[in-house]
Amino acid sequence: MDRPKADSVLVLSGLDPSGAAGIAADIETINQFGLTPLPIITLLTAQNTQKVESLEVTKNDLLEHQFKLIDEDIHFNTVKIGLLGSSSQIIAISNLIKNRKQLNIVLDPILISGSNENLSSIEIIEAMKAELFPLCLVLTPNLAELNALAPGLDEQAAVASLNCPWVLVTTSDSSEAEIEHRLYHEAKLIQKFIYDKLPHKFHGSGCTLSSAISALIASGDDVDVACNKALQYTYQCLLNAKKLGKMQFHPNRTSSKLI
Amino acid sequence: MDRPKADSVLVLSGLDPSGAAGIAADIETINQFGLTPLPIITLLTAQNTQKVESLEVTKNDLLEHQFKLIDEDIHFNTVKIGLLGSSSQIIAISNLIKNRKQLNIVLDPILISGSNENLSSIEIIEAMKAELFPLCLVLTPNLAELNALAPGLDEQAAVASLNCPWVLVTTSDSSEAEIEHRLYHEAKLIQKFIYDKLPHKFHGSGCTLSSAISALIASGDDVDVACNKALQYTYQCLLNAKKLGKMQFHPNRTSSKLI
Repeated sequence: MDRPKADSVLVLSGLDPSGAAGIAADIETINQFGLTPLPIITLLTAQNTQKVESLEVTKNDLLEHQFKLIDEDIHFNTVKIGLLGSSSQIIAISNLIKNRKQLNIVLDPILISGSNENLSSIEIIEAMKAELFPLCLVLTPNLAELNALAPGLDEQAAVASLNCPWVLVTTSDSSEAEIEHRLYHEAKLIQKFIYDKLPHKFHGSGCTLSSAISALIASGDDVDVACNKALQYTYQCLLNAKKLGKMQFHPNRTSSKLI
Repeated sequence: MDRPKADSVLVLSGLDPSGAAGIAADIETINQFGLTPLPIITLLTAQNTQKVESLEVTKNDLLEHQFKLIDEDIHFNTVKIGLLGSSSQIIAISNLIKNRKQLNIVLDPILISGSNENLSSIEIIEAMKAELFPLCLVLTPNLAELNALAPGLDEQAAVASLNCPWVLVTTSDSSEAEIEHRLYHEAKLIQKFIYDKLPHKFHGSGCTLSSAISALIASGDDVDVACNKALQYTYQCLLNAKKLGKMQFHPNRTSSKLI
């Protein structure tokens, strides 16, 4: 695959002041892989390791202005997208990406918080599927998110309906003792990644994983290699997680030897 | 000094999407010292390595809500304060800090951007001096900022007027070939730190320095030790800085061996 390298990853993501998830997770992870994160905030949230209480969506004109100033100044080839605030914001972002072309988009479709709050809506899901997924290289839904994105379908059909070349279905939210993450390419299952289920609840594991994938892709790795390395990195972060808050653990993103 | 340790630093700081300064600099630096940053955004900005074009100040009620949710969930003993958006925001923050008590506050009085734009106003300067500085443990003005905070006074008198026990005057913005940063305690010069002036312009060196000081203080270091180590760390970040944008260099915060 002809994939020129870049030293940075543009991130469109929410702010979680607990530092466990969101833009802090993205910044820490991308930094650990030796790249510079270029952070644009999609929403400010008030939350901690127990609950999410408010969301303030960034205005589209500010977000567009931020993207434009970075794009005219700093080279990037990869964008990591996390929490999104509204269907209007999704359309604005998809227009920015369409105009920029030749970007590797890694999107973590965050629909449900680590503390099980619904962070999305039917309008957001529909806009993501219609406008953003067809522009993406990789999606990283967990089982609950895949089900919300494509209700009533079996996994393979659900993945096929997302209209994106690579889908990594993460399954840590299953009740199995052994976790099997599954990577699909063109809706065909091509690889399984087996991990032991860990005992704690974590805040920000999905952000860590998708940021690691984006950093590795920006560095020139192929998608399947990036997914494998990013899963290993994330698992190390979770094995060494810190209990700072009263409920969910913080992934320890500096603990791991990079691969 | 009886200084209990903490694993995290609360950060109140602006977002710079170039990733060179602001909350990304704070997150990367605090993370490099093995602590978890708890990021609250005071302003969203549109900027790159050449210019700052817009500022959107976070609403006080959201900021207060964010602080409250973190405070009731995660232990922290140190707060790093960077760019501030309005006198009303400064009063809101000083009230949060007063109610919390026993916090080490490290404040970088950002008044002028790396690209020389004025990021402040007389109202902001007056509110900082009246409301925030008396609550702080350490201030880190550069020469231009010290002059804006206390115009017409010589350095020692200017430092004395700030009403804060520790003031580290950084002088990289002087035209001298040899840089002499000066640490004052109770308005008395107690230590000089000599460095060679580096050739480039940097974006985010002050954020890196003040975040490093806050991380070291949170970890239990005395202020003079923290300032010395943080200056060494920052100098390494600048020596290894990356040219990603068209003008100012990005400090390379992962390049340095931690001290």
